[in-house]
Amino acid sequence: MSQSTSQNKPTAFADRLAQAVRRTGSVTCVGLDPRLEQLPTSIRQIAESGAADAKAAAYTQFCCDIIDVVKDKVACVKPQAAFFEQLGPAGMVSLGQVIRYASDAGLLVITDGKRNDIGSTATAYAQAYLGAGDASPWGSDSLTVSPYLGRDSLEPFVEVCDERAAGVFVLVKTSNPGGGLLQDRVTDGQTIYARVAELVQELNQGRTGESGYGPIGAVVGATYPEQLAEMRAAMPTSWILIPGFGAQGGTAKDVIAGFDDAGMGAIVNNSRNLIFAHRRDEYSQKYGESRWQDAVSAATDEMNAVLATRIS
Amino acid sequence: MSQSTSQNKPTAFADRLAQAVRRTGSVTCVGLDPRLEQLPTSIRQIAESGAADAKAAAYTQFCCDIIDVVKDKVACVKPQAAFFEQLGPAGMVSLGQVIRYASDAGLLVITDGKRNDIGSTATAYAQAYLGAGDASPWGSDSLTVSPYLGRDSLEPFVEVCDERAAGVFVLVKTSNPGGGLLQDRVTDGQTIYARVAELVQELNQGRTGESGYGPIGAVVGATYPEQLAEMRAAMPTSWILIPGFGAQGGTAKDVIAGFDDAGMGAIVNNSRNLIFAHRRDEYSQKYGESRWQDAVSAATDEMNAVLATRIS
Repeated sequence: MSQSTSQNKPTAFADRLAQAVRRTGSVTCVGLDPRLEQLPTSIRQIAESGAADAKAAAYTQFCCDIIDVVKDKVACVKPQAAFFEQLGPAGMVSLGQVIRYASDAGLLVITDGKRNDIGSTATAYAQAYLGAGDASPWGSDSLTVSPYLGRDSLEPFVEVCDERAAGVFVLVKTSNPGGGLLQDRVTDGQTIYARVAELVQELNQGRTGESGYGPIGAVVGATYPEQLAEMRAAMPTSWILIPGFGAQGGTAKDVIAGFDDAGMGAIVNNSRNLIFAHRRDEYSQKYGESRWQDAVSAATDEMNAVLATRIS
Repeated sequence: MSQSTSQNKPTAFADRLAQAVRRTGSVTCVGLDPRLEQLPTSIRQIAESGAADAKAAAYTQFCCDIIDVVKDKVACVKPQAAFFEQLGPAGMVSLGQVIRYASDAGLLVITDGKRNDIGSTATAYAQAYLGAGDASPWGSDSLTVSPYLGRDSLEPFVEVCDERAAGVFVLVKTSNPGGGLLQDRVTDGQTIYARVAELVQELNQGRTGESGYGPIGAVVGATYPEQLAEMRAAMPTSWILIPGFGAQGGTAKDVIAGFDDAGMGAIVNNSRNLIFAHRRDEYSQKYGESRWQDAVSAATDEMNAVLATRIS
C-alpha cells in the first residue's frame, strides 16, 4: 500500500491498480504458475533432492527471479495457489515468500485461489489472504473467489475488502470450454454469468473510488469476446481480470472489449507464455535456456506492445 | 487405506466410508473448525504469545484432542481448510498434522477446501489433497470441490480419485440462505443444482464399488429437506455430505431423506455443536470447561443416538 489519503487511509485497491496501470503503461498480469518439470535447468537443480522443501525453494527462486524481471514492466502478478499447495505446507511457505517479494517490489498481487465458503468461513479465507503487508498472513492485495454459494458467501469478502482496502475478482464467465455448462444457462432471459455480473455490480455500489472502479472485480475469459463486451457493459465499475490469453487461444483483438474508453478497467493475464518463454520456439533459439530471464523480459515486452492501448 | 483387494489395490474411498459407517454405527462427521476465541482456556493458553506458530500449535492440540475422543465413535472428520489458512503457512502445517493424526487414528478425512479450477490447475489441487498417507502432501481421503467451472473442471479431480482410491464431494445444494441465488435457478424445467447432480451422477458411471457408491459425492444442505430427497434420488451412487445440521438449524428429521434404504449413503456434519460442546448450556454446567473433552464425547454420543438409523 504505497499511497495514503489525508486521513491516512490506504488507497483503495481499484485505485492502486489504476495508478499502477498508468505508471507502467501495461495491462499485463504475469501469472506465476510454477511447474517443476518446466523450470529452467538451473532452477530445477535447486529441487534436485526431491524433498518438498527443496521444490518449494526452487519455486520461490523462480518466481522471485521473474519478479525481478517484470517489476517495472507490469502492474500486477497473479500467483496460482494450486501449484504451491501441490507441494504441501512447504509450498504455502513459498507462496507467502513470493507474495511478499512481489509486494516489496511494488507489484500488486492477485492471489488466484478461487476460494469460497459461507459466513464466518468465508471471512476466514478473506482474513487469510486479503490485505497487503502485515494486514493478512499471506499479504495479497486481492484474491479470486467463486460465486456458486451466492450473495451471502461473497459479502464476507466484501467486508474485509472494505476494512483492508483490498479487492476480489469473482468468477463470472470463465475461459474453459466446459465453463458454459452452468454459466451459460438461461433463466428469464438472463444467463447465470449475467446474474453473477449483476450481483458483482450491486456489491460495488457505493464503493467506487477516484478511478471509477470498486473493490469487486470479475473474471471473464478472453476466449469469449462477445460475452466480454456484454460483461464490460454490465459491470461498469468492476476491474475485469481476463484469463485465457496466449496459451489458451485468446488474442489482443479478443480482449479489446474488456477495456473502457480510457483503455482502463481490465488486466490481461498470461502465465505459461511469459514465465516459460524460454521454451517457446521464438525465444529458445535466441536466448537459450541459460538466458531464460531475458526470454521472460522479451515476452513481457511483446505482450505489453501487443496490448498497448490508449491509457489516458 | 486400511484394506486391500487381492490385486493390492487400495479399497475405493466410497467402500471404505461404507465400512467405517458400519464398523462405528455412526453417520456423524465431526467438523474440525478451530476458532481461537472459542477454544477451551487450557488450549488457548498454548497460543498466548500471539505468534502464528503458537496459534497453529493450539489448533493442532485442540483437533488432536478431539480426534482422541471421537476416533472410535465416528467414521470421519472434516477439517475446514479456511480456519487453518487464516493462520498463514503455519496453519497449513497444522492442517497437515491434523489430517495425519486423524488418518493414523483410523478416521477417514474429508478436507473441506471447496477447491476448483480448470485443467492442469485442478489437477494440482487434486494431487495436493487427494490420497491418504504419503500419496499426497496433505494426505486426505477426500476433498470438497465447487462446480461453477463445469465438467472439465471436475474431471481432473475424478482422474486423481481413480489413481489414488480417493473421493470428492461436489457442492450441489448448499445449506446457506443465499445458496439459491444461482443454485435454484430453473432452465428447461431443471434447477442448476439438479444439473450439477446430473453431472455428478454421470461422473460416477462405471466407478461404483461393492458398496454401490462411487468416488464422486455431493454436498446437499440439511436445511432443505425436500431438495435432499430429490438429490438422493438423482444421485443414487453418490455419498451425500450433509452440512447445516445443528448450529445451522437442520434436525434429524430433516436429514433422513439423505439416506438410502439400508441407512447408508449419507454422512451428517456437525462442527460447532460438537467441538465447542463445552460452550453449550447443557454441557457447560455438567462438565465445566476443564472437562471439555467429556463434553465433546457426550455431544458426539448424543448426535450418534439422534441419527441412529437402521444401518444394515
